[in-house]
Amino acid sequence: MTSAAAGIGVDVGGTKIAAGVVGADGAVLARVRRDTPAGDADAIARTIGEVVTALDAPALPVGVGAAGHVDLDGVVRTSPNLPGWSHEPLRERLQAQLDQRRVVVANDADAAAWGEYRCGGAADVDGLVLLTVGTGVGGGVVIGDRLLRGADGGAGEVGHLIVDEGGPRCACGNLGCLEAHASGTAIGRKAREAVAQGRVRPASPLASQAPAGADVTHAALHGDPDARDLLAEAGRWLGVGLGALGNVLDPPVFVIGGGVMAAGELLLAPARAAMVERLLGRETRAVPPVRPSALGGDAGLIGAGLLAAEPAGQPQR
Amino acid sequence: MTSAAAGIGVDVGGTKIAAGVVGADGAVLARVRRDTPAGDADAIARTIGEVVTALDAPALPVGVGAAGHVDLDGVVRTSPNLPGWSHEPLRERLQAQLDQRRVVVANDADAAAWGEYRCGGAADVDGLVLLTVGTGVGGGVVIGDRLLRGADGGAGEVGHLIVDEGGPRCACGNLGCLEAHASGTAIGRKAREAVAQGRVRPASPLASQAPAGADVTHAALHGDPDARDLLAEAGRWLGVGLGALGNVLDPPVFVIGGGVMAAGELLLAPARAAMVERLLGRETRAVPPVRPSALGGDAGLIGAGLLAAEPAGQPQR
Repeated sequence: MTSAAAGIGVDVGGTKIAAGVVGADGAVLARVRRDTPAGDADAIARTIGEVVTALDAPALPVGVGAAGHVDLDGVVRTSPNLPGWSHEPLRERLQAQLDQRRVVVANDADAAAWGEYRCGGAADVDGLVLLTVGTGVGGGVVIGDRLLRGADGGAGEVGHLIVDEGGPRCACGNLGCLEAHASGTAIGRKAREAVAQGRVRPASPLASQAPAGADVTHAALHGDPDARDLLAEAGRWLGVGLGALGNVLDPPVFVIGGGVMAAGELLLAPARAAMVERLLGRETRAVPPVRPSALGGDAGLIGAGLLAAEPAGQPQR
Repeated sequence: MTSAAAGIGVDVGGTKIAAGVVGADGAVLARVRRDTPAGDADAIARTIGEVVTALDAPALPVGVGAAGHVDLDGVVRTSPNLPGWSHEPLRERLQAQLDQRRVVVANDADAAAWGEYRCGGAADVDGLVLLTVGTGVGGGVVIGDRLLRGADGGAGEVGHLIVDEGGPRCACGNLGCLEAHASGTAIGRKAREAVAQGRVRPASPLASQAPAGADVTHAALHGDPDARDLLAEAGRWLGVGLGALGNVLDPPVFVIGGGVMAAGELLLAPARAAMVERLLGRETRAVPPVRPSALGGDAGLIGAGLLAAEPAGQPQR
């Protein structure tokens, strides 16, 4: 082992439950992975208990990052991708299953923010705003060495900044959320619209299919100019959101993760440019750096394990 | 005196410098007021020194709320309404003038947020987001019992949330900021547009003038339906901003101050309705209350005095 084991982290997503023993330095020292029995709350809790037990570290506290709205008591109020969860008392249930071991439950993107903060893209500063740009846009906020949970656990939903009131319909039902312009889903939708409207060159690999967001990223990384334009537009919208967040929170750093970050600077460069334009007093103020995630897909698991292990894992309202 | 004197608060605006001795309970125990010599940094500092000295409380620490971007060293980088200030080392200069007394300098809306938090509209909870809706839209954020200053002092500029990218031009130069839709200036602009476009009934008091924001509030309070529609629209945009802030910060309460709050529920009721619609998971989450300011125009002075007196006045980055 390269570092002392600090906690067990569990990342519960719509399709997979990933768990690991997390070292104090963020190293993942052992791993287990299972499919998520998404429709059945009992089966999800049982599966989490099984992966934790399989890691065979009964002295370690357990942190769970769960896709959904997690309140300050560790109850999952709702989860868009896990229909089995509705007012699910996950922390209480897992604690009972695990012989009253310390269990911390947080939103998965909040856990990822904590991971990036403690040993990822923001390890050198005293806070961050994380945005995860994937199917949706999620995120988390760390201020003053504490994870921001909010009064009812609802903080960090940066994908639902309204940046374009009256704009495209978001998965949440509202119009013009950041997610409706900058997520992988939005990139795919805009690509299909561009194809349907003849705005994509016949030579583009996008023209011959009904492209999804990942197809756009793939084509852009292979040099397709139409795909690059679509990513630049998503990046510009991301920058509009970063500008709004910069004006309200002025964080020491933004960290960007999620699947769309496979596009790297094709997304980040236009995002930075659009952000700077929108910062109040941009001529005389420091501009927050915008960095790629350092932990990638492990951020949630690592952050959950560290949240369980550290006093700072206590919720900051 | 009804309470022990805690600090001297100074609110430096574009036209007036208001100072007072602030009690630990937020009471203003003595007051002084002068015109602001807005174009001359030396004269502003001298005037602040004079009002502080006039209050004759040499043992008290001094807090200054200054309109502008105040960095973490108490330097005013820029101030839209005080052209004399450019990289003005206000804290250092005042400390030298005042025999090395403790001096804290913050943005005026940040100071007001601290005042509302400690003894105003949020005195019963552990944080708030304040929005001041006046000529512009300013604000401040208190999280976890600490005033949020941001990495470079730029936090709390809630008026520059981009809610309508590509929308109306804001005083900051950008398009579609909350301020460009919900400030008193924006309400006046929209009223004049409505008059010019014949959308105001001839019987409305707005029809016979080039109305400013305050005229709209006045007419609305006297029952004019056109004026009420204009305030309702501003309130709706305010609610779009509150929804975005609710999704990112989930504060225990929103407090709304500033001159436009003379309109009271004519502004707040549509704001609350628009906010709730935009909150993620609104069916199952607690909705932050939206309250009027309790301290009104004294919030900045009171907050500045308390910031100087309390350890929590140390900046939270």
